[in-house]
Amino acid sequence: MQDRDGRPLGVAAIGYAFMGKAHSHAWRNVASYFDVPPFEQRVLVGRDAGQVAAAAARYGWAESSTDWRQVVQRDDIDIVDICAPGYLHAEIAIAALAAGKHVLVEKPLANTVAEAEAMVEAAQAARARGVHSMVGFNYRRIPALTLARDLIAEGRLGTVRQVRAAYLQDWLTDAEQPMSWRLRAETAGSGALGDTASHAIDQIQYLLNDRVRSVSGRVHTFVTERPGPCGPETVTVDDAAWATLDLTSGTIASLEVSRVALGRKNGLSIEIYGDRGSLLFDLETMNELRFLDGTVPAREQGFRRILVTEPEHPYLSAWWPQGHVLGWEHSFVHEIADFLGAIGANRAPVPTFETGLQVQRVLHSIVTSSAQSQATILLPPALD
Amino acid sequence: MQDRDGRPLGVAAIGYAFMGKAHSHAWRNVASYFDVPPFEQRVLVGRDAGQVAAAAARYGWAESSTDWRQVVQRDDIDIVDICAPGYLHAEIAIAALAAGKHVLVEKPLANTVAEAEAMVEAAQAARARGVHSMVGFNYRRIPALTLARDLIAEGRLGTVRQVRAAYLQDWLTDAEQPMSWRLRAETAGSGALGDTASHAIDQIQYLLNDRVRSVSGRVHTFVTERPGPCGPETVTVDDAAWATLDLTSGTIASLEVSRVALGRKNGLSIEIYGDRGSLLFDLETMNELRFLDGTVPAREQGFRRILVTEPEHPYLSAWWPQGHVLGWEHSFVHEIADFLGAIGANRAPVPTFETGLQVQRVLHSIVTSSAQSQATILLPPALD
Amino acid sequence: MQDRDGRPLGVAAIGYAFMGKAHSHAWRNVASYFDVPPFEQRVLVGRDAGQVAAAAARYGWAESSTDWRQVVQRDDIDIVDICAPGYLHAEIAIAALAAGKHVLVEKPLANTVAEAEAMVEAAQAARARGVHSMVGFNYRRIPALTLARDLIAEGRLGTVRQVRAAYLQDWLTDAEQPMSWRLRAETAGSGALGDTASHAIDQIQYLLNDRVRSVSGRVHTFVTERPGPCGPETVTVDDAAWATLDLTSGTIASLEVSRVALGRKNGLSIEIYGDRGSLLFDLETMNELRFLDGTVPAREQGFRRILVTEPEHPYLSAWWPQGHVLGWEHSFVHEIADFLGAIGANRAPVPTFETGLQVQRVLHSIVTSSAQSQATILLPPALD
Amino acid sequence: MQDRDGRPLGVAAIGYAFMGKAHSHAWRNVASYFDVPPFEQRVLVGRDAGQVAAAAARYGWAESSTDWRQVVQRDDIDIVDICAPGYLHAEIAIAALAAGKHVLVEKPLANTVAEAEAMVEAAQAARARGVHSMVGFNYRRIPALTLARDLIAEGRLGTVRQVRAAYLQDWLTDAEQPMSWRLRAETAGSGALGDTASHAIDQIQYLLNDRVRSVSGRVHTFVTERPGPCGPETVTVDDAAWATLDLTSGTIASLEVSRVALGRKNGLSIEIYGDRGSLLFDLETMNELRFLDGTVPAREQGFRRILVTEPEHPYLSAWWPQGHVLGWEHSFVHEIADFLGAIGANRAPVPTFETGLQVQRVLHSIVTSSAQSQATILLPPALD
Repeated sequence: MQDRDGRPLGVAAIGYAFMGKAHSHAWRNVASYFDVPPFEQRVLVGRDAGQVAAAAARYGWAESSTDWRQVVQRDDIDIVDICAPGYLHAEIAIAALAAGKHVLVEKPLANTVAEAEAMVEAAQAARARGVHSMVGFNYRRIPALTLARDLIAEGRLGTVRQVRAAYLQDWLTDAEQPMSWRLRAETAGSGALGDTASHAIDQIQYLLNDRVRSVSGRVHTFVTERPGPCGPETVTVDDAAWATLDLTSGTIASLEVSRVALGRKNGLSIEIYGDRGSLLFDLETMNELRFLDGTVPAREQGFRRILVTEPEHPYLSAWWPQGHVLGWEHSFVHEIADFLGAIGANRAPVPTFETGLQVQRVLHSIVTSSAQSQATILLPPALD
Repeated sequence: MQDRDGRPLGVAAIGYAFMGKAHSHAWRNVASYFDVPPFEQRVLVGRDAGQVAAAAARYGWAESSTDWRQVVQRDDIDIVDICAPGYLHAEIAIAALAAGKHVLVEKPLANTVAEAEAMVEAAQAARARGVHSMVGFNYRRIPALTLARDLIAEGRLGTVRQVRAAYLQDWLTDAEQPMSWRLRAETAGSGALGDTASHAIDQIQYLLNDRVRSVSGRVHTFVTERPGPCGPETVTVDDAAWATLDLTSGTIASLEVSRVALGRKNGLSIEIYGDRGSLLFDLETMNELRFLDGTVPAREQGFRRILVTEPEHPYLSAWWPQGHVLGWEHSFVHEIADFLGAIGANRAPVPTFETGLQVQRVLHSIVTSSAQSQATILLPPALD
Repeated sequence: MQDRDGRPLGVAAIGYAFMGKAHSHAWRNVASYFDVPPFEQRVLVGRDAGQVAAAAARYGWAESSTDWRQVVQRDDIDIVDICAPGYLHAEIAIAALAAGKHVLVEKPLANTVAEAEAMVEAAQAARARGVHSMVGFNYRRIPALTLARDLIAEGRLGTVRQVRAAYLQDWLTDAEQPMSWRLRAETAGSGALGDTASHAIDQIQYLLNDRVRSVSGRVHTFVTERPGPCGPETVTVDDAAWATLDLTSGTIASLEVSRVALGRKNGLSIEIYGDRGSLLFDLETMNELRFLDGTVPAREQGFRRILVTEPEHPYLSAWWPQGHVLGWEHSFVHEIADFLGAIGANRAPVPTFETGLQVQRVLHSIVTSSAQSQATILLPPALD
Repeated sequence: MQDRDGRPLGVAAIGYAFMGKAHSHAWRNVASYFDVPPFEQRVLVGRDAGQVAAAAARYGWAESSTDWRQVVQRDDIDIVDICAPGYLHAEIAIAALAAGKHVLVEKPLANTVAEAEAMVEAAQAARARGVHSMVGFNYRRIPALTLARDLIAEGRLGTVRQVRAAYLQDWLTDAEQPMSWRLRAETAGSGALGDTASHAIDQIQYLLNDRVRSVSGRVHTFVTERPGPCGPETVTVDDAAWATLDLTSGTIASLEVSRVALGRKNGLSIEIYGDRGSLLFDLETMNELRFLDGTVPAREQGFRRILVTEPEHPYLSAWWPQGHVLGWEHSFVHEIADFLGAIGANRAPVPTFETGLQVQRVLHSIVTSSAQSQATILLPPALD
């Protein structure tokens, strides 16, 4: 499956804005550092013909196109990487899977639970035919977080009781910042919740290898009006949200996200407290993991700052000698290395669309709870 | 009022355990560093005659007693400092106020809202007679937090939107730690909630000069059974709690407390995000305040670590030259300096019992919400 | 020896400025937290009769005096605590020891090597008569540094190769800050070197249980003129210094001190690198010690932040429960507890005057090296 | 000059180990993020034909070669990027410049002052013919350090008095780590001194726009013997060094480097203290700069942590939105962007070979001083 008839896998990417740029970087670099099946950056797809052509040239794509429908049908395309806005995810992914293309979709999987359910259905049907799919929760591939998952899986934290997760940004602090499509529910689906809480929820479930079973939460919009071209317009998505999440194991996680937390630039912070050890992580210092081993004598206990740049650390042997820190963009390089590796081995890559749907249901339950005065909402059982 | 008939104020303290030891330290030291009305450490009161006599000798009290009822009636006692367990606060405070003694009560004000209400009634009646009372939320007197309050009051944060408060400890992490009176509802009232959330709630209201108006919350007990002398016993207080708090101004605060957060020793952390500035504080590094001024150019914005040891900082001119950090116990020295200063000036010291009651109501509402599946609970209007 | 004829030890302190205030605090508090021989704060001595009387009253001394010569001869005085300026140390200490009084001298031991040698001679003679003496390098009694010493003594660092020590302050940054006695060689002896490098050098020797055997160094004055009452005056002491120190074991230590390092308030930082472990300390966060255990697998190595507030930590069981940080002033409480403990047990307290002399010789060698274009200077062998 | 006869610039890189890999990454990515003259990755040169061919394929080079002498003469090569070991720098660079190729040389410029002088002579002759050269002190292109330079140049630090620089690593801590060519003087030139002190010295001179005029220093080898294939062998390069550096402006800088500082992975730390402001940087957290503005009131002064990821920051507008940190390797991307920009504009790129020679002379003076018991050594005047 690694290539059809011996030829390299053909890749198409859809979208060339922030995420398209980041994914393109990953496609451009992955084979220099990881052993992956042969592939080619064939087509970059976007809406504006001139801009997408320029982006394709910059980022190493052989051609460009403005017609994703046509591209996902091309015989020389084996993989479709969807970096388009969330409301397009379902339609493109379902079409690509139907056409027998492996699909990678940026997170969150979709804007609604219904879309996500349809995507899962399509993914399951495709999987039965050896056609694979994955949702791009790239932070799973940050070495420090992969290491955190490993330490937890090895039992170094014992029973995890509490998790504190937050994703704080500040780019909407200024109330005079103008209205945009990202602040309208019909285009963006949600605000901080879908964009950043989705990352945090995936991390909680991933790191603990656990699933959320019930939720109490709240969404809120601090800045309810912003300047539009013809006067003030109403913001229809949240700019902050809070939740407590019960996991099936009994762990309780708290969650807080914001786009108006002045001074926090990309502050995904995760604290995990077990009865034998604890872990701390902050995306702004993403090459570090803080680990407290509760089994050493109290006299010498303390959170140790592990600089996750040793060859012993996940993904690191591919890169530089110890002490040379990696950037945020390499989470995508690792993601695509893992994705290609799974495709090459004809294994289902993770996280699956089912995982993406589960995150979507958690997000949806927070909104539901918020509408019901924060009453606790029980989730349907997870699919995977 | 500073002294009666020209003689120094006579002080009695009730309790000689952790809080009694800390308050005794403050009484013993306050006059060396602050200008306060003349006073004498007359009596230390406790249950065990031998132990309280020894403690009195160590901590500088002229005598000891086992009978608080008798002590609060003594003519040579003007001030009663109540460091006894919470369930005794109401009875002692009401008796002392009735006897015309100024009263300082350790936080939380009481174990129940009903007790707190009775105490407020007694305090109001006494206040009309020039007899004063105060609840001991000592963290208001940590210089870094006083500075935080000042910066907020000066508008340096603009409109505060979000607060994140947590008080995390780990002394109950080990499930084999034995049962004690602190883990039984009938003696302790509550667990982490009353002990530590009360501090955090007071800080939120104090720093923002605002009041909680509604609450959604949750209490939880991770370790439900602990070894007793005759086998396992049931823990009947919480060891963790979560809440979101709506303040009257529109600010939303999140709160999380725990006694099983392994690695956090005394982790009261407070983050305050406004639209012009932000502040961070952590009790484990209590001589520091982190302040971000959002009005400087983005290029040079960042949380600055202020070492709060300059003569310009609150309380600091009384102590050492810059850079010489203070310990936790000095929050009590400052508290008693302020208390004595108010008594001397015949002013009502703050925080009042009304403030203590308000905190109690917030705690109670969290419990109520928790019992109602985290539904939002509206508080009665604050008294002060 | 603990008391003469059954009566408490009588203490006299000389000096009531910064150090006198800090020592007075310690005398006032030590017996509340540590088991020490009975003693009384009898006399505080100073130059200004009115001020010293007021200070005596504030800080708990029974009387005051302006005549140290008379005080050190009094029969009811058993201990003399010398907090006077450095140029008076030798004269007072020698007189007090000759009068049979135990002596505690603030660091540095003296302003010159000759004075320090005379003091050692007096101390040795007195010691033979059961009269004890100690130099007050109080930072040895900061729990985190005592813990550091213990870890090193236990071999947790293996062979120590490198030490990096710095003591950075900024109170002389502003060139317009006026001239004072502290900036004249004839009164102050030296600048940053004597005041702060002495602390750092003592720490290096104490922590490693080692001695400096040769030195290359440099002293420098960045601000050479400051405003005096009648115009600019010449600053005749250093405001910064640097050195590399060879220890007898082969360890090499670097040292840097400054009073013009803007932003550093009381920045004594010490880094110790061994072949099995490493330690970091910073006085501005003095309740913390960072320890890296090089024997754990590389994958989980990292500097762990130990909050040195556990009952298992040095001095801590006397104080508060875990997580409640201590202030700078408690280093003196611990120092006096240790001093009194040694007196009570008729043991020689440490650090001895011999240790103080050794530090003095290192300081002197730095000055000598500086005058010789930083050439390496060999020290005479240490006395203890 | 941007291209000859309209064709893209042809690039050859020599070396495919650590530095060759890092430079290749930069060549492969620079045009995606920066506007640079058109160029092509034509040839990768190495000693082992098979390995260099594989590396060329992985890293995006059109061909490979084992003969640098032939490559530097090729008409289709316009730029030679020298990543070979230091002892080859001079020979290759001089040949390439003579052949009219623009040359980029990894730091340090050479292994000896004599080689460096010959290279400067060649560079000056070539420059007169429009052929350019640059030495690769890539850390100048870390955005946080570029920002530091800008702040200093703008006068935000006032007069800089003191600099503390250290470059600490730990990869030679274990005495059982085997002997290698890097530990022999004849191949490596020097140890920590040439490898890491060169970076620190360049930074000091770059950030302050100043030059070292005299030096006192010391080199040392802690582990003098290491296992070779036939038994212990003598290590003939330093594993640690110290120096104090006098700059022409009067600033004094201290320097310490080590390869046995256990726990420090890539710890280039720089502290700069002026009379109006101060800066702190640590390569292990290279996306951050700490800045203290001494002109704000003392009450709110503190080192602010600037996360250098804003579009307003140097190089950042090319990359991701705020808060998305960059990796170490991007310093090379920026370096090559600047190099290509200068070539395209027919400007002399910086840092020049003259700058590289100046660093070499500082290194050499440290060795000389070390051999003369740390006596102070005066440098010849800088060339640029």
